[in-house]
Amino acid sequence: MAMKKFINDPNDLVSELLEGYTLAYSDKVALEEGNLVVRPVAKDAGKVGVVTLGGSGHEPGLSGFVGHGLLDISVPGEVFAAPSAPRCLQAIKRADRGAGVLLIVLNHEGDVLSAGIALEMAEAEGINVKRLLTSDDISSAPRSDPENRRGMVGCLPVFKVTGAAAEQGRSLEDVYKVGKRLERNMATLSVAVTPATHPETGEAMFALGDDEMEIGTGQHGEAGKSKGPLASADETAETMLNFLLEDLDVQAGEELLVIVNGTGATTLMEQFVIYRKVHQLLQSKGINPARSLIGDYITVQEQGGFMLFIARMDDELLELWDASCDSPYLTVR
Amino acid sequence: MAMKKFINDPNDLVSELLEGYTLAYSDKVALEEGNLVVRPVAKDAGKVGVVTLGGSGHEPGLSGFVGHGLLDISVPGEVFAAPSAPRCLQAIKRADRGAGVLLIVLNHEGDVLSAGIALEMAEAEGINVKRLLTSDDISSAPRSDPENRRGMVGCLPVFKVTGAAAEQGRSLEDVYKVGKRLERNMATLSVAVTPATHPETGEAMFALGDDEMEIGTGQHGEAGKSKGPLASADETAETMLNFLLEDLDVQAGEELLVIVNGTGATTLMEQFVIYRKVHQLLQSKGINPARSLIGDYITVQEQGGFMLFIARMDDELLELWDASCDSPYLTVR
Repeated sequence: MAMKKFINDPNDLVSELLEGYTLAYSDKVALEEGNLVVRPVAKDAGKVGVVTLGGSGHEPGLSGFVGHGLLDISVPGEVFAAPSAPRCLQAIKRADRGAGVLLIVLNHEGDVLSAGIALEMAEAEGINVKRLLTSDDISSAPRSDPENRRGMVGCLPVFKVTGAAAEQGRSLEDVYKVGKRLERNMATLSVAVTPATHPETGEAMFALGDDEMEIGTGQHGEAGKSKGPLASADETAETMLNFLLEDLDVQAGEELLVIVNGTGATTLMEQFVIYRKVHQLLQSKGINPARSLIGDYITVQEQGGFMLFIARMDDELLELWDASCDSPYLTVR
Repeated sequence: MAMKKFINDPNDLVSELLEGYTLAYSDKVALEEGNLVVRPVAKDAGKVGVVTLGGSGHEPGLSGFVGHGLLDISVPGEVFAAPSAPRCLQAIKRADRGAGVLLIVLNHEGDVLSAGIALEMAEAEGINVKRLLTSDDISSAPRSDPENRRGMVGCLPVFKVTGAAAEQGRSLEDVYKVGKRLERNMATLSVAVTPATHPETGEAMFALGDDEMEIGTGQHGEAGKSKGPLASADETAETMLNFLLEDLDVQAGEELLVIVNGTGATTLMEQFVIYRKVHQLLQSKGINPARSLIGDYITVQEQGGFMLFIARMDDELLELWDASCDSPYLTVR
């Protein structure tokens, strides 16, 4: 079967998608030499820069969140591949407005490697950089082993909260601390029902039976931990939420941020139905779903399924989450 | 093959999705008796109300655009089905803040029928209502026959422009006029590559060969005008854009709003690649792609494909398009 994607030469895919994106939103983002996605007007001097990096193919993530109150620079790699260390270094240097740079890295081997080299080189040049690793996928390792937990949609609230803190003029240490506090209090679990097609190879990224779903799938189409029969929306929501609440040891009386993040072909209609059950279950347990966000933010091509994310919030985190921001794919007034 | 959707009892689908949506965004929208999606705080007295109606299954459309600077009330029907006239009447009465109500109706038979009855009943009760019919699909009839052109994603910019005008305190006649001017200057064409599954019946909504695409598909999975072999992104963009430019008779020097609206499983990555070519082609013809928007706004379940929309803009339309708005799925700061 022919791959049913609107692309041209797969070798040009990433440069073309970045060009299209930045042409469409030229008032909000610009494409720099070396395919860095930057703000058209740099942040004020004296404020901490916030930078991330990661493979393409997850649109609008990650470059869709460059803007006021969010990222300063995104370094996109090829499809599902980390960008090179020199490009990350270039981004760090450009993002430094004299107050240092927070480098947010989703925990995936290639990204961690490139980020680590870039960070060392930046420090050698006298730039103050701190790395914040996000590792929110509870299916890949236990909470006690964050080194082996993958970074998932949790990067988005970390961008939001650290971006807001940076905009307030806080120090790098402060921006890092508040981001790290969120990172330690968040958890994600994903489920897939239909595989994505890799846009460069045309191959399906994993196999699932006609009536199966798979919980614990990765962000690059990696197969998950457990396959089972397709369940209803309510059953799926309950199973996933219980895993997350247990992982984070959430107690009655606590306040959560909840994100339902579609990975591709699963409709927003279905995501609303999932959220309804999550909201009801939380309320029945005396837990407050204080904030929520539903939509396709970090996708896996057209993979059917979604990620369910929760984070334990406190007053400061809620205030930073609510702060205004302006990027092409996340705007808060 | 089992339907791979996260739903519960299909009979509860619409009420559950609306409940989930309004629970998630309770600061921005509320669900009224009769499943009307409304603003939690009504617009100021003396301003024109803006109301729309239409079937569910197109999320985030249409109820995702209720909010400041956009819709006051959305009346959702069952999946792909018009809401009843009494519910539309209820919405019109509730939206009237003393300055009358603009009722925006996508041109589909059931919606037009319900809206027509509701409008007559509202007028009989002394409410000042004007109907604005959107009929932007160039594949369903020639421009000279708007009665037979379907309403597509063009409803969204009409919501935006009339919502902004209403917020400025303009009269119903003025709000209608500016919306109608946009409506007469817009055109949409859609393409599909993979069918959607109807969430209530589990049936594929049309058939396409493995290497085929279909141009001119409708908003409810209706089959299109012409099937052909799958083309590249650039070829598809050029074919579709040329049809639209010809339909609207766009001339060099004019300014356009361009929307690439994904209908479901087609990734934002692909939509960016399509936009890139559209932007380049317009520039090469001396036409200015002055504003653009890319994403899944009016979907057809998980149908693979997209709608390409253009509108001829003037200074007033651009100002209203740029005005701030705040709804769950469209926010302008």
